[in-house]
Amino acid sequence: MLTPKFDNLVTQLKILPSVGQKTAQRMALHLLTHKRHQGIQLAEALMTAMSEIKQCQICRGFSDDDICPICADNRRNNEQICIVETAGDMVAIEQTGNFSGRYFVLGGHLSPIDGIGANELGIDLLIAHLKQKFEKNQMIDEIILATSATIEGQTTAYFISEAVKPYVKNITRLAQGVPMGGELEYLDSMTLGQALQNRGIL
Amino acid sequence: MLTPKFDNLVTQLKILPSVGQKTAQRMALHLLTHKRHQGIQLAEALMTAMSEIKQCQICRGFSDDDICPICADNRRNNEQICIVETAGDMVAIEQTGNFSGRYFVLGGHLSPIDGIGANELGIDLLIAHLKQKFEKNQMIDEIILATSATIEGQTTAYFISEAVKPYVKNITRLAQGVPMGGELEYLDSMTLGQALQNRGIL
Repeated sequence: MLTPKFDNLVTQLKILPSVGQKTAQRMALHLLTHKRHQGIQLAEALMTAMSEIKQCQICRGFSDDDICPICADNRRNNEQICIVETAGDMVAIEQTGNFSGRYFVLGGHLSPIDGIGANELGIDLLIAHLKQKFEKNQMIDEIILATSATIEGQTTAYFISEAVKPYVKNITRLAQGVPMGGELEYLDSMTLGQALQNRGIL
Repeated sequence: MLTPKFDNLVTQLKILPSVGQKTAQRMALHLLTHKRHQGIQLAEALMTAMSEIKQCQICRGFSDDDICPICADNRRNNEQICIVETAGDMVAIEQTGNFSGRYFVLGGHLSPIDGIGANELGIDLLIAHLKQKFEKNQMIDEIILATSATIEGQTTAYFISEAVKPYVKNITRLAQGVPMGGELEYLDSMTLGQALQNRGIL
């Protein structure tokens, strides 16, 4: 629309989630008009992150180095491993501030049709780790299955629970129930049914 | 939250308009998980645009070279100059497809308190151009004042109209009235009043 370099920037900005033509244009104009210097810093941060962030060799989450800060932090509880589908889920759980154990990032869920089996999700790696602990008589306390509450997520959780059963003391999964602020009237009956079934003593 | 490089990317993404912590995090995770290659292309486009896009020496809009594609396009009408506040306004008018003349980008509006006078908006440049044409007996047909319909925009328009009056045949401004799809009931009375005053013959 304006110049080739401008148009190219707009096109590239559209790869960001929920950014369309209008928003991309507004972003490009905003940066060019008011924030050239910060725009360059953004470009540098983006370049560094895209080319240098790798997979943590222990938890398969994102990391600047071979081992991520969470896996490297020896104040964290080694007795709990929380299994999540994505690094985003890991961030979400970290932000609750309610968990101080370790993580393991699957990077998706089982999907035989797409060729995603146990190995693609690193489940072999997880089992090898648990087995090693088990053989040293350091059996891990708890595996928390924090996969999504979807059919795929639950299938994956079931598969993992069967595979790790011999090597851990407890296998748990996230509670299902009424979300905070949820009004019963508008809740789907599956969730409400689960909430009723899993009711707790006050 | 995750790693320093990730956190830095999230911080930098927040300079984009209407991108907060949550959205920036989602963008960073999305790019890292699914679109590393495109992320690098975005970084490159951003770097190029921020460091290489300059001001067109004729219209003061954005340009890859000294003269922007619109000013360099000799199929456009030299007899009309549309005066806008920002390059974004220029894009908006270009996208209507209703204008094939030239542009002049002020880069803001008059604001003596902020030290923005006629020279900061390049009005001297505009007048020099019109004067030169005038002295060659090539007086320009029309100046379209397409500044914002705000107090500042209208003041700026008035100032420019006074300054260019001797050197152009016609000075016009954008019509004010009911926007497309506007329901009269919900329109502010200033706009409705203007629409009534400027009513046209059917």
